Amino acid sequence: MSLPTIGKYLSYLVLFEGLLMLPSCIVSLYYGERFVATALVVSAGICLALFGVLFFLCHKTKESIYAREGFMVAGLGWITLSLLGAFPFLFSGEIPNFIDALFESISGFTTTGASIVAQVDNMSRGLVFWRSFTHWLGGIGVLTLMLLIIHYRAGAGFTLHFLRAEMPGPSIGKVRPKTKDFIKVIFAVYLGLSALNLVCLLLAGVPPFDAMCTMLGTAGTGGFSFTENSMGDFSTAVQTIVTVFMTLFGINFVLYYYLVQREWKAALRDEELRMYLGFFVGATVLIALNLFFVNGVPLLESFHESSFTASALLTTTGYSIVDSSHWPGFSRTLLLVLMLFGAMSGSTGGGFKMIRVLILFKALKVGLHRLVHPRSVTLVRINGKRIEDEVITRTLLFLCAYCGIALVSFMVVSLDGQSLEANFSAVLSCINNIGPGPATVGPPPDYNAYSWFSKMIFALNMLLGRLEIFPILLMLTPSTWRTKT
Amino acid sequence: MSLPTIGKYLSYLVLFEGLLMLPSCIVSLYYGERFVATALVVSAGICLALFGVLFFLCHKTKESIYAREGFMVAGLGWITLSLLGAFPFLFSGEIPNFIDALFESISGFTTTGASIVAQVDNMSRGLVFWRSFTHWLGGIGVLTLMLLIIHYRAGAGFTLHFLRAEMPGPSIGKVRPKTKDFIKVIFAVYLGLSALNLVCLLLAGVPPFDAMCTMLGTAGTGGFSFTENSMGDFSTAVQTIVTVFMTLFGINFVLYYYLVQREWKAALRDEELRMYLGFFVGATVLIALNLFFVNGVPLLESFHESSFTASALLTTTGYSIVDSSHWPGFSRTLLLVLMLFGAMSGSTGGGFKMIRVLILFKALKVGLHRLVHPRSVTLVRINGKRIEDEVITRTLLFLCAYCGIALVSFMVVSLDGQSLEANFSAVLSCINNIGPGPATVGPPPDYNAYSWFSKMIFALNMLLGRLEIFPILLMLTPSTWRTKT
Repeated sequence: MSLPTIGKYLSYLVLFEGLLMLPSCIVSLYYGERFVATALVVSAGICLALFGVLFFLCHKTKESIYAREGFMVAGLGWITLSLLGAFPFLFSGEIPNFIDALFESISGFTTTGASIVAQVDNMSRGLVFWRSFTHWLGGIGVLTLMLLIIHYRAGAGFTLHFLRAEMPGPSIGKVRPKTKDFIKVIFAVYLGLSALNLVCLLLAGVPPFDAMCTMLGTAGTGGFSFTENSMGDFSTAVQTIVTVFMTLFGINFVLYYYLVQREWKAALRDEELRMYLGFFVGATVLIALNLFFVNGVPLLESFHESSFTASALLTTTGYSIVDSSHWPGFSRTLLLVLMLFGAMSGSTGGGFKMIRVLILFKALKVGLHRLVHPRSVTLVRINGKRIEDEVITRTLLFLCAYCGIALVSFMVVSLDGQSLEANFSAVLSCINNIGPGPATVGPPPDYNAYSWFSKMIFALNMLLGRLEIFPILLMLTPSTWRTKT
Repeated sequence: MSLPTIGKYLSYLVLFEGLLMLPSCIVSLYYGERFVATALVVSAGICLALFGVLFFLCHKTKESIYAREGFMVAGLGWITLSLLGAFPFLFSGEIPNFIDALFESISGFTTTGASIVAQVDNMSRGLVFWRSFTHWLGGIGVLTLMLLIIHYRAGAGFTLHFLRAEMPGPSIGKVRPKTKDFIKVIFAVYLGLSALNLVCLLLAGVPPFDAMCTMLGTAGTGGFSFTENSMGDFSTAVQTIVTVFMTLFGINFVLYYYLVQREWKAALRDEELRMYLGFFVGATVLIALNLFFVNGVPLLESFHESSFTASALLTTTGYSIVDSSHWPGFSRTLLLVLMLFGAMSGSTGGGFKMIRVLILFKALKVGLHRLVHPRSVTLVRINGKRIEDEVITRTLLFLCAYCGIALVSFMVVSLDGQSLEANFSAVLSCINNIGPGPATVGPPPDYNAYSWFSKMIFALNMLLGRLEIFPILLMLTPSTWRTKT
């Protein structure tokens, strides 16, 4: 384990975070919230000071980064960002409790959107903006991580074998010769889609501040809201814009690269995309019909409500426009399935990820076939490409770890004495990075009702979900920390 | 696919079932229930007639049994037993609806214990006995299946490769030279433990009929009760006897063979046994303390209640002595975990099985280690024996299939409009072969509230759970039925 290498990478992260606190500072000043602006400046100052220290200590190291260091940078990076990101909440006095401030910050950077703020209307605009901004940063952070994986996988001399399993999605074989192009395109798409989203919202008449926060939460598939009613107070047109953009941000960004390269076939024939859209359309139709026939909601309205809610859960954003706790059981069960499955790999969304569902489904089919025909050589293929056994095993282990973590978390938070449905909703919302979310199993979770210990368990679940479990699990394993192997 | 081979094996099953209806017939006559006795005799007659037809058609076949046929005999065997076992309920008019009668019969043979009988006090004694007797037969059926697997695995020329994965438990390497001994010992232990259980209950003052039914339900880890109150009306001593025997029947019967062979070490050092007892004792203590501190139940009473309930769920029997719906959330969450994990492999209990939990836990640990040290050769070992990768993959696929089936069932039964907690409880109770069971997530499920379609989904879940998923899934796969490979 090379601590200087890790320190070097973290120092850059800390520098960026400090600089990125300044936009929120400007928002604060615009709204005349001087005290909040000061809190943001002080926090930014701490970031820059920490950068100085880390840079001074670690910038000379030239050691290579190996698997362990890669995991550590990912895990510690998110934790460092969250710790420093909690300072503005704390220093401004708006979230005076450190645990609560940390919870809010982790929830932001992991693009979860779970909140302990009881009355968001009373929060200063500067901090509301900072909160939503952390979603957007979290979103770009996940894309960066994905790019690093693809980049190094494409042969830049790194040994991040392990991460291969995390990217079994669209083939990036053709990407190799133009890696730099590729990285530029992905970032450009994120920025471009964000800008387009903002413009659409402004055109639909949303005030600039609201449009900005809505966009930041949508792009990061986060879900922090800035009104008591999430997206419920906006017009149908605005809600539809949000539905469309949530769905777009839940798509694997590699496919956008294909589109930019005019490789339409590769993009549109992608099996994961078809599954993702299939789940979205299928769930929308089924829920709309269920609402129409059982609850008597007019057909157009029921389609509007079901498409928004399905997208909000499938992309793990967690915005809501109606109280879905009175929806029929079938609709709520479908929503639960959507929220478990989650968005596409390589998107800003969380959850179990479509590609894993696809791999497991195919692996199960092949496994059954092999039981009866032990000598057959049926392979698991996605987009015509063979999925290696190692990838399948790792996906299965992911499922196993996911179930184990959910069960243990469920058990620990049950000590708080809340209802089991509330615990169930809260744990699943956190590990899938959904956060607030429409009512599914029970009503949307009230995180404030839990003890500080449970809140930390929830925060841990958000981190586990965001970093796809393994980096965090490794961080918690003592043997990973030993300097010598 | 050799249909005659399957028919031959099924014919013997049908013959046995017909003969085994006669004890219930005697009970009916003893209680003066002549009409019920007639119904049982007619049902037995149908069994014998069907045996005649099958035997006439299939007894000459000399084709070997292969993997597919093995699965088919297991799957079709349980279904045939259940179909014929439903006749007494139907003909007697006590369960006039065929779907309901089939549900009750499947629930019996799969040792689930879920019931659609609203007032068991009104049921004739003959049928109550038959119902409990199906539990006991189901229990011995599962042991037989296990013996066949071990027998053929030990080299009797069969090609049941596939089933190896189902028996990764205690090493049976030493068994080979004395296979016949082994089979005798296992059956003798089942009969002996059953008899001992009966004697203990009689000595504790339980009336013979009640003692018999309690024993049959305990040995098969079934859980059908013959009073409205499950085991709640019995004395503390009787309940303690039931606790002990439930726990004993949840132990892998291979370990009893070791004990009989005086191989104490092999039996007592078994890792699965330690895990099983660890869960039982751990859960008992935690729940007892939780009841003592939170609900103020006196310590001795809380230990009594917690040990009974923990054993009833861990062994997937499903008896209950108290209404646990008012227990603290932590206790109910622990019960949920117990019911998911289930008993030991090679026992009469159901659920996910301790050995699988153990394998997955170790596989995850090794998988994490391999992420950081890709070239290391850490192996998964249980009882010092290496677990092959194939077995691990199959266990992981089992988890995957288990989650998938639970999700789909959960979705389908939600169409009935019952509460989601009720659906959740019912699906998990059925797939884990628990049946009635103490309140965990929600109150114990009321299966009668569901449509006939949902009842069949529940029944399918019981069969899937009892036969460990794969045989039933293969039965439902069209390609398995093709005559040529």
